Amino acid sequence: MAWMWKIYPRRASKEFFGGCSMLEATIHNTRDTMLIEKIKNRESGIILYGITPPKKGTSAEKIAEISSRQIQRIQSLKIDGLILYDIQDEKSRTSEERPFPFMETVDAFHYSKEYLYSLSVPKIIYRSVGKYSKSELSQFLVDASAKDDLTVFVGAPSKSQAITLSINDAYKLKAETNNNLLLGGVTIPERHQSKGDEHIRVFNKISQGCTFFVSQGVYDVNASKDFLSEYYYYGQKHNIPLVPIIFTLTPCGSLKTLQFMKWLGISIPKWLENELTHSNDILQKSLDFSEQSWLELKSFANEKGIPIGCNIESVAIRKIEVDASIELLQRINRQCNK
Amino acid sequence: MAWMWKIYPRRASKEFFGGCSMLEATIHNTRDTMLIEKIKNRESGIILYGITPPKKGTSAEKIAEISSRQIQRIQSLKIDGLILYDIQDEKSRTSEERPFPFMETVDAFHYSKEYLYSLSVPKIIYRSVGKYSKSELSQFLVDASAKDDLTVFVGAPSKSQAITLSINDAYKLKAETNNNLLLGGVTIPERHQSKGDEHIRVFNKISQGCTFFVSQGVYDVNASKDFLSEYYYYGQKHNIPLVPIIFTLTPCGSLKTLQFMKWLGISIPKWLENELTHSNDILQKSLDFSEQSWLELKSFANEKGIPIGCNIESVAIRKIEVDASIELLQRINRQCNK
Repeated sequence: MAWMWKIYPRRASKEFFGGCSMLEATIHNTRDTMLIEKIKNRESGIILYGITPPKKGTSAEKIAEISSRQIQRIQSLKIDGLILYDIQDEKSRTSEERPFPFMETVDAFHYSKEYLYSLSVPKIIYRSVGKYSKSELSQFLVDASAKDDLTVFVGAPSKSQAITLSINDAYKLKAETNNNLLLGGVTIPERHQSKGDEHIRVFNKISQGCTFFVSQGVYDVNASKDFLSEYYYYGQKHNIPLVPIIFTLTPCGSLKTLQFMKWLGISIPKWLENELTHSNDILQKSLDFSEQSWLELKSFANEKGIPIGCNIESVAIRKIEVDASIELLQRINRQCNK
Repeated sequence: MAWMWKIYPRRASKEFFGGCSMLEATIHNTRDTMLIEKIKNRESGIILYGITPPKKGTSAEKIAEISSRQIQRIQSLKIDGLILYDIQDEKSRTSEERPFPFMETVDAFHYSKEYLYSLSVPKIIYRSVGKYSKSELSQFLVDASAKDDLTVFVGAPSKSQAITLSINDAYKLKAETNNNLLLGGVTIPERHQSKGDEHIRVFNKISQGCTFFVSQGVYDVNASKDFLSEYYYYGQKHNIPLVPIIFTLTPCGSLKTLQFMKWLGISIPKWLENELTHSNDILQKSLDFSEQSWLELKSFANEKGIPIGCNIESVAIRKIEVDASIELLQRINRQCNK
């Protein structure tokens, strides 16, 4: 079976699901209006689910079919919000060949408004700001609803990437245009291990308006704990209240996915990579590790009162992998309700 | 109170204890003759305790006093063997200033034979082979008893260190001189993270006669798991039976000890360093982490059937730190008996 790829914040993909009718009544998710309050209250335990819009060029009919499937899948999930990624090509970040080709998607905000409106869960619209002109981003900020939408700004993947708008300019624009819209940032705990200043970057972003952060996929718990620890002690020392850090968990269903995750810059400890590589069921093994990672992070953060949450990505390839992301979400939900 | 330092395999120290009489009857430790069998059987669960002989130049009377204290302390411990370190100056390894001065000790084998004979537990005599001439090492190998003694050869801390005997020559000498004496090697899991070949080094040493390994102090469990994983899968792939890996746990009683451990090349994750640094009771915290590290390593190794054991070092500074090493040993013993 030929299957296409959606995998990651800011990254290439295609959602691929069988069809069914799209029109459905608005579903009232029990958590729906809570997300904004939870973020403002700096609460722990926020749970998100992340998807990527369909590939650009997909017919309207096919998009309707895909979105219907997604709605069906998402409506029953106990989540606080739905992330819609805005992928960008990252070829400037590494000279290594990309294991899967980069494919542009339809606009996340457009997709949310036109196809996912029946899902009452708050939408977190990613914006890879370097892709947009000032007026384009401005228009998005005007159109976004501070009640139903949130946004996360993503900077360029490397300094050499050609951009039209810098992230600092985007922050200024956001403050001027729609100050009430909740803004998040991305954090890459792995970067802390090489540069040691990820917590400083996060505090800088907080000072520019970010009220929550979503991490890159976590396979290296030590890197995340290093970051959380520095974030905590710096906040204490400088008397800065902490905002929620949402850790992303990504099931891994094949060796090629593993290779792709590494290409994306996700750090995977050697022992864990060996376990996945030698496993008879890499997907289930990755779920076990992801759940374990969450428990370890939760225990570490709870002890210090650091607000953390969890974002589960749908690695929407084969049905088995989509199901795995749902299973992981349910496992995390059970852990959070304990 | 002025206190002196003993801390580490191959490293400077001074044992400092109050005096008491030395002559005592030979104590029969329940584990005493088991160590050699356990190693030959490649068993898990070997527990060792590591000490450094008194500082060179200490009077015979004072040495007797120190050894008496050590005997008292060690005789009731449930251990399979007692490590006696042979420290060497490591100034060639790093240009950073050593937090504690290097101090030579009396010869470990001499100390064992002359002062610790009443302890019937097997002694593992370290030999920093680069310090000795061929005839000196040869003499040690002739004098050592394959029934009561074991030895661990340690190479030069860096390539620039002036040595009289290379470790490969030492291995050859050992095979020619006292082939029955059980030989161990040292392993530095941290090295695996930078060089990625620690398991290969270990297998090379096995082929040269090593039948067990003792690690550097473990504060970075991930590094140890990386090494164990590679050791396991390489052994599987090449059908080489695994020998026991004994992980060293070292209580840390002060910020200066922490600094010293880092100087010695022990990798400490940032989050863990922060926890120790900010703790009101760094010593107890370090015991908690050490116990936790052991549990994590044990669980990882047991699942795969990798034989591992544990060596607890006495960081013989203040009495409270000596007591802490005993407490840690007891904790580990309880965990091993579960």
